[in-house]
Amino acid sequence: MTAGGLGEFGRIRCFFAPLAGPGGLGLTDDAALFDCEPGRRLVVTADAIVAGIHYLPDDPPDLVARKLLRVNLSDLAAMGARPRHYLLTTALPETIDDAWVARFAAGLAEDQRRFGVDLLGGDSVATSGPAVLSLTAIGDVAAGAEIRRRGAQPGDRVWVSGTIGDAGLGLAVLKGEYEALPAEHRAALSGRYRLPEPRTALGPRLAGIAHAMIDVSDGLLADLGHICAASQVAATVAAALLPLSPAAAAAIAAAPEMRAKLAGAGDDYELLFTAPAAMDPAIVRVGADLGLALTAIGTIEAGEGVRLVDPAGRPIAVKSPGYRHF
Amino acid sequence: MTAGGLGEFGRIRCFFAPLAGPGGLGLTDDAALFDCEPGRRLVVTADAIVAGIHYLPDDPPDLVARKLLRVNLSDLAAMGARPRHYLLTTALPETIDDAWVARFAAGLAEDQRRFGVDLLGGDSVATSGPAVLSLTAIGDVAAGAEIRRRGAQPGDRVWVSGTIGDAGLGLAVLKGEYEALPAEHRAALSGRYRLPEPRTALGPRLAGIAHAMIDVSDGLLADLGHICAASQVAATVAAALLPLSPAAAAAIAAAPEMRAKLAGAGDDYELLFTAPAAMDPAIVRVGADLGLALTAIGTIEAGEGVRLVDPAGRPIAVKSPGYRHF
Repeated sequence: MTAGGLGEFGRIRCFFAPLAGPGGLGLTDDAALFDCEPGRRLVVTADAIVAGIHYLPDDPPDLVARKLLRVNLSDLAAMGARPRHYLLTTALPETIDDAWVARFAAGLAEDQRRFGVDLLGGDSVATSGPAVLSLTAIGDVAAGAEIRRRGAQPGDRVWVSGTIGDAGLGLAVLKGEYEALPAEHRAALSGRYRLPEPRTALGPRLAGIAHAMIDVSDGLLADLGHICAASQVAATVAAALLPLSPAAAAAIAAAPEMRAKLAGAGDDYELLFTAPAAMDPAIVRVGADLGLALTAIGTIEAGEGVRLVDPAGRPIAVKSPGYRHF
Repeated sequence: MTAGGLGEFGRIRCFFAPLAGPGGLGLTDDAALFDCEPGRRLVVTADAIVAGIHYLPDDPPDLVARKLLRVNLSDLAAMGARPRHYLLTTALPETIDDAWVARFAAGLAEDQRRFGVDLLGGDSVATSGPAVLSLTAIGDVAAGAEIRRRGAQPGDRVWVSGTIGDAGLGLAVLKGEYEALPAEHRAALSGRYRLPEPRTALGPRLAGIAHAMIDVSDGLLADLGHICAASQVAATVAAALLPLSPAAAAAIAAAPEMRAKLAGAGDDYELLFTAPAAMDPAIVRVGADLGLALTAIGTIEAGEGVRLVDPAGRPIAVKSPGYRHF
């Protein structure tokens, strides 16, 4: 199937079979096997990326692979699940050579170790169009501990992990904007866009604490909107409370109105959750345990919709609240 | 993302959300939930198809969907698993309109009912190239009852379900060959190519009976080769014993040497398995229960490789033993 090179069989044997866990059966069977521990439920999600749309064809292949895996692990974390396995389907044009696939697999290998997951199987096909990479991630959660979008209640606080807006600014940096920013800030922002950090340790720790949770992929306000729609509640977020990284703060220092815009930017893959005020001490403890900033940025109310407000409580208009794949 | 029409959100809501089972959470959450019954293991597989390579862009969309689902269910059956759920990722060009997606989803709906599976989630993205459709199927099997490729033993008989070669001949019919064949035979053969019948009832019934199993996707000889390689054994298949449908028999009536060629043709999605001779009565009973032909076509021996032989036991050369995706 490939002009010269290892061919599909060879690529699987050389690059992907070493990634297979025991249940992957060396990628030599029709299907893979895995187990579920008693008292736990399985959680599954899938995301696809397309060259030229979700990443650039000359992006480093190891980073492409790691981002693809990580956005899926982020979806598992948003349900409170721990990651366990994944399957990978690649549709690759002839222009992708073995070296690209080798580096792609090396990226997967690195993140498998980091996140404790293994490859169960998948498929490898040719396409005359751009590469399409599809990953299905499987995790598990204690039965009843799963955290969904629909549990938010009036009176809950709205919390977010880490910092917001870095990925959106990082994409702008990669497009040549923010040239005046110091190199280390530019690198920090573009790095956050290229390689998100899924909050896999945080998600499961919020079982019994959070009422509702989602990961920030479309943009903080859009994703909070998904929680509100599913929970039939409204939310108010204080723009001044949005946690910013030093790099993001530097980037928007000359244009404070940008802070509101960052609330609409996507791809941060932080966890956004709601919890009753009585859980404040528990949340602070989890943040301290993990060494991860957890910031209360707003409240859940009766009604519908999401408002971003300034320190005087006045609504701030925000364009483009993002869209959502399924 | 789509020029006019429903857009991604609308398509999910209108066409795919109705396919979701309870664990799919209406396709509105980050991930889906499912359970595993005590004493059972989970089985998972993924296959992708590309427009212009695995199907023709003007093929009926409902048949494209059903074939994609069925080839995955066939992989589950080949492990002895029963199908339960699936996830679907679509990368579609702008030229695919809502009507195409509606018919694609209608095909899935029909086969969901037929095979007792439901949709857990997936992803929907745009591509500038041909459509890439990727499906992950999840099934389960009683722990210890899974049937793998590697269990074949010298002395086993080689069995195959249904009839062999129909799909390969059907593809030839669709390409304009076999014009002299009666219309009903042409329809029977092309139908087998377009819509395989995964042996989902047979697979689980062979637990405790079959030593090794695979589905015939690359071609009977190639797939038997996979069993032999995994089991470190050899196999001999008698060309005269290959079960042919009336349509296939008619198609090759004028060219008996074609019988050997059919052993190399793929896409039949029958189950190919090995079992000790002591299991003959049990296998006959299963076939009778299911109303499905099960035919002994050869034997497993010590050694390596697969031989096709004529009635005098002389090897028949067969070209192109097929290739295998992972």
